[in-house]
Amino acid sequence: MSLLVVGSVAIDTLETPRGRAPDVLGGAATYFAVAASFFGPVRLVAVVGDDFPRAELDWFARRGIDLAGVEVRPGRSLRWTGRYHEDMNVRDTLSFEANVFEHFAPELPAAYRDSPFVFLANIAPALQARVLEQVRAPRLVGADTMNLWIETTRPELDALLRQVPLLMINDEEARLLSGERNMVRAARRILAMGPESVMIKRGEYGVLYFSGESVFVVPAYPLEEVFDPTGAGDTFAGGMIGHLAESGDRSEAGLRRAIVYGSVLASYMVEDFGGRRLRTLSRDDVERRYRQFVSLTEF
Amino acid sequence: MSLLVVGSVAIDTLETPRGRAPDVLGGAATYFAVAASFFGPVRLVAVVGDDFPRAELDWFARRGIDLAGVEVRPGRSLRWTGRYHEDMNVRDTLSFEANVFEHFAPELPAAYRDSPFVFLANIAPALQARVLEQVRAPRLVGADTMNLWIETTRPELDALLRQVPLLMINDEEARLLSGERNMVRAARRILAMGPESVMIKRGEYGVLYFSGESVFVVPAYPLEEVFDPTGAGDTFAGGMIGHLAESGDRSEAGLRRAIVYGSVLASYMVEDFGGRRLRTLSRDDVERRYRQFVSLTEF
Repeated sequence: MSLLVVGSVAIDTLETPRGRAPDVLGGAATYFAVAASFFGPVRLVAVVGDDFPRAELDWFARRGIDLAGVEVRPGRSLRWTGRYHEDMNVRDTLSFEANVFEHFAPELPAAYRDSPFVFLANIAPALQARVLEQVRAPRLVGADTMNLWIETTRPELDALLRQVPLLMINDEEARLLSGERNMVRAARRILAMGPESVMIKRGEYGVLYFSGESVFVVPAYPLEEVFDPTGAGDTFAGGMIGHLAESGDRSEAGLRRAIVYGSVLASYMVEDFGGRRLRTLSRDDVERRYRQFVSLTEF
Repeated sequence: MSLLVVGSVAIDTLETPRGRAPDVLGGAATYFAVAASFFGPVRLVAVVGDDFPRAELDWFARRGIDLAGVEVRPGRSLRWTGRYHEDMNVRDTLSFEANVFEHFAPELPAAYRDSPFVFLANIAPALQARVLEQVRAPRLVGADTMNLWIETTRPELDALLRQVPLLMINDEEARLLSGERNMVRAARRILAMGPESVMIKRGEYGVLYFSGESVFVVPAYPLEEVFDPTGAGDTFAGGMIGHLAESGDRSEAGLRRAIVYGSVLASYMVEDFGGRRLRTLSRDDVERRYRQFVSLTEF
């Protein structure tokens, strides 16, 4: 079933303890769309500048990512330069240029308005709400947010949370949003704000999923080498919702399997800079690591 | 089957963001022994002062903890006072008095020398080695250590590691011991130092178990309230090895189940100060949370 993602597509320059990668493909919607495209077609709504490599857009198209919603504007694309510390949970933004992204006002092509699966990647809550107004009766809407919006646009974020069934954020964001350090209590508070379910991403420690009385706890796939953690959370979201869109299975068991597929995609994502590992990854690789995940965790 | 633990039995004073608890039962061997006693008899080798509450020793005995190896010496017991930060992964030692523990030189009663299961709680590696010399052909020996010994008595620790099949340490200790930040590589390096298996404890994030080519990753039971994390790691070890001693099942599946039982005990441990929760805990409670653990993690 069709899956729509709205968010940033960028050009990143990354520095990690393992090396430096200038001008690689970045942006939350990019990571989400590429991960989801392992499971089915994806509709992408984003804006890029005229500096954005044509070859990358062509690659998106070859992966089944529909570009009818990607606007190419005169000017430079969103660009971010970040540096990771030896502890890769900590990173500094060295530069951020919004460029054409500054005036991003997502407009959905008419054909996208019936998308049953929707992911609102991390953009201003008012823009996320604007997307929601344009979709008709989606089966599942997931959204991400970040500290900036929690701190600066709380009323808009609160309004959005009342409309978003699935919130996917990291543990630091969950703490800030809820005012609770403990993740179980943070999740309970967030569920009281509107979402039916909340997924808390904990990086190398995996994810916690809370939905009503149900809780699912899953560790991350243990990796020997993390080259670049950028986009792991969005890749996780893309793998998870992409798998749900493919399977159509909204049962608890189906959701849990989708979460593990998300973890598998994220584990591949961080194995090289800017998701280069995903370029050579096959569906067989995904299935193989899913089976390894089972054997690493079953008891 | 008989399980022997050698280590500290102490009187602790704890301060956490949830409150203060003066003069509660503490010490690594205490936590281990109490947790293991849910699964079968335990032999305890330790030293306490004449200030140690008789009622606590009586409680040990009622739990099936054999006290033939507990020496009561004139003087005060080991005493530790610690304060936890709002982030309970961080704590300060406010005071440490070794007292009678300063000259602890473990001597095993003759009847303990055939113990098939042995746990060397965190004491100086030379003392751990002294215990190993006194046991005959144990089926499983587990050991803990700490930063102090890694930094100050490395030759003794290295010698010990060549004799210890199962090392159980936390992630910080694993980093220090291996020089590797990444846990998969840290584990590989530690296995090259001698142990057949290494269990890396990650507090609220669960544990990683590495044995040859096999890896088991298990999250911690998500708790809404952590009152006091003191002793969670030793409680985990006691639950795990206690369960192994009960089941006798050394298969991969048996080990994994034992690890989850260890996690269950640790999750109860932190629910009150100084393990008070364990005083009212029943085996049924343990089994119930084990089943909850299955439903929280299965997919």
